[in-house]
Amino acid sequence: MAVSNPFVLSTPSLLYALDLAGTFVFALSGGMAAVKHRLDLFGVLVLSFAAANTGGITRDLLIGAVPPGAVSDWHYLGVSVLAGLLTFRFPSRIREDWSPVLLFDAAGLALFAVTGAGKALAHGLNPVMATLLGMLTGIGGGMARDVLLSRVPAVLRADLYAVAALAGAAVVVGASALQLPAVPSALAGAGLCFGLRVLAMKHGWQLPVAAPADPPPGKD
Amino acid sequence: MAVSNPFVLSTPSLLYALDLAGTFVFALSGGMAAVKHRLDLFGVLVLSFAAANTGGITRDLLIGAVPPGAVSDWHYLGVSVLAGLLTFRFPSRIREDWSPVLLFDAAGLALFAVTGAGKALAHGLNPVMATLLGMLTGIGGGMARDVLLSRVPAVLRADLYAVAALAGAAVVVGASALQLPAVPSALAGAGLCFGLRVLAMKHGWQLPVAAPADPPPGKD
Amino acid sequence: MAVSNPFVLSTPSLLYALDLAGTFVFALSGGMAAVKHRLDLFGVLVLSFAAANTGGITRDLLIGAVPPGAVSDWHYLGVSVLAGLLTFRFPSRIREDWSPVLLFDAAGLALFAVTGAGKALAHGLNPVMATLLGMLTGIGGGMARDVLLSRVPAVLRADLYAVAALAGAAVVVGASALQLPAVPSALAGAGLCFGLRVLAMKHGWQLPVAAPADPPPGKD
Repeated sequence: MAVSNPFVLSTPSLLYALDLAGTFVFALSGGMAAVKHRLDLFGVLVLSFAAANTGGITRDLLIGAVPPGAVSDWHYLGVSVLAGLLTFRFPSRIREDWSPVLLFDAAGLALFAVTGAGKALAHGLNPVMATLLGMLTGIGGGMARDVLLSRVPAVLRADLYAVAALAGAAVVVGASALQLPAVPSALAGAGLCFGLRVLAMKHGWQLPVAAPADPPPGKD
Repeated sequence: MAVSNPFVLSTPSLLYALDLAGTFVFALSGGMAAVKHRLDLFGVLVLSFAAANTGGITRDLLIGAVPPGAVSDWHYLGVSVLAGLLTFRFPSRIREDWSPVLLFDAAGLALFAVTGAGKALAHGLNPVMATLLGMLTGIGGGMARDVLLSRVPAVLRADLYAVAALAGAAVVVGASALQLPAVPSALAGAGLCFGLRVLAMKHGWQLPVAAPADPPPGKD
Repeated sequence: MAVSNPFVLSTPSLLYALDLAGTFVFALSGGMAAVKHRLDLFGVLVLSFAAANTGGITRDLLIGAVPPGAVSDWHYLGVSVLAGLLTFRFPSRIREDWSPVLLFDAAGLALFAVTGAGKALAHGLNPVMATLLGMLTGIGGGMARDVLLSRVPAVLRADLYAVAALAGAAVVVGASALQLPAVPSALAGAGLCFGLRVLAMKHGWQLPVAAPADPPPGKD
């Protein structure tokens, strides 16, 4: 629990509010994926919780912050369940238009990358790993959602997703190293991540795939 | 390791015996799924161990009880391996009749929901999260089994499974809050969970699915 | 952090070097699987890291060594990313010949089984569980790789893989119990594991599967 930088911890309520907001929007995206795959009500709530909290829980286990925030503080559960019930009750929104979901998802990614990197720094991790744990906080929930739906996680082959989270987390870590104030840094990091992600979706930016040669292999 | 309630810890040997019994019956169900999917002997033993212990290990990691009971105390391993060997040696039982397996599974669910909630309470978690961790202890092993078999966890779309675990865990947590004696409370919680689960199977009780509209989507 | 045996910890630099070497070869195998499944650059790097480090991270979480070595020490990340970039840049090697990959994989298995068992002993685990955690260190990364690719982990139904890791780990644990010197013991354990694995591949040694009767079941 070494506190490496007073700037990071001086705004716990900001981090907390952003964290709950990110939880809500990620839980919406998890619940919507569950509705789309025709899970029952319990499945929708589990996917909402998993998509919203697995990244943060994994980060907390890895940095030794036990019990993880999402377990000891039940606001995370409450926010996740609320979002899950909303997606269960109003599934038609999904079919009409997926783009709000993708915007929610981009916002959740930005918020979690920033708060995740901040929490890792506050626990004394080195800058490289704090940046990565910020990214993991952002992408872990979506990976859990996809694994539970028996799919290859979209983040491993879709457009510029993890890179946006990495950039947002790097801004927070860099600003902390330079002793810049935490609130504007967090906003700048989140804005960069969100902007990158939205532009990547709009323009179809992709990371490269290794040079093809054979037809893609079968499942085994 | 805050101990919130002397009633919970006053019966460690009961909790322990129930825990080992739940381990055995869940390991049977894991081993049987592995035999059905034609895994080799090692795969059968891994699925037995994973189905029986992943829920408890996850709970222990989340509440900070490290190393988890299933790692530091090798009775859990022994019981799991024994059950795995039994299913490997006598696979014909599976084909003849699946209903004993489902009864085993309901019994394991009931035992784990009760012991999991009790252990979470004993580590000072709040009642809401202790109830959920009891449920997670009950359903986590089956989820791990299904993920390892590359399936969407049955608990996310099958009949009243998690709800039964939730009810059993809630009885234990509620009784603890009311300072009722632990042994009858645990038996009542386990009985409620087991009864709900068996009735749900018998009558085909289901949780609702969100209103359908499109054909179910493809895998991606 | 109970240190049970001075012989194990007397060679930290050997363990560390072997650990990094194992990380590199496992990351190669993870990256190659990702290239084969047409993941993008980020996906290749994630699979490299996951295949190389999930076993060790899981072991560290289970024994309470938090933050895990692969998180606090970024050499593991660096070695994994380097291997991932190599597989991304030179994917043709995969198509030409898979056997070097399998040899890399066997070497990684041997190194991780040995170092994993050593670390578990150093944290005071009993001999049975230390052996199993050595095996888990060896096979955990490959299981994570396969789960992320939405496949049933190969180790659960392929040839003599986990058994080789178990044998290698058992040599280290047994030698430690007999107070034999650590370096030759580690080399003997790794050699046994590597040899068993290579012979199993060469001769197609398999573990038995439970007696068949029905056609294999569908996915659900």
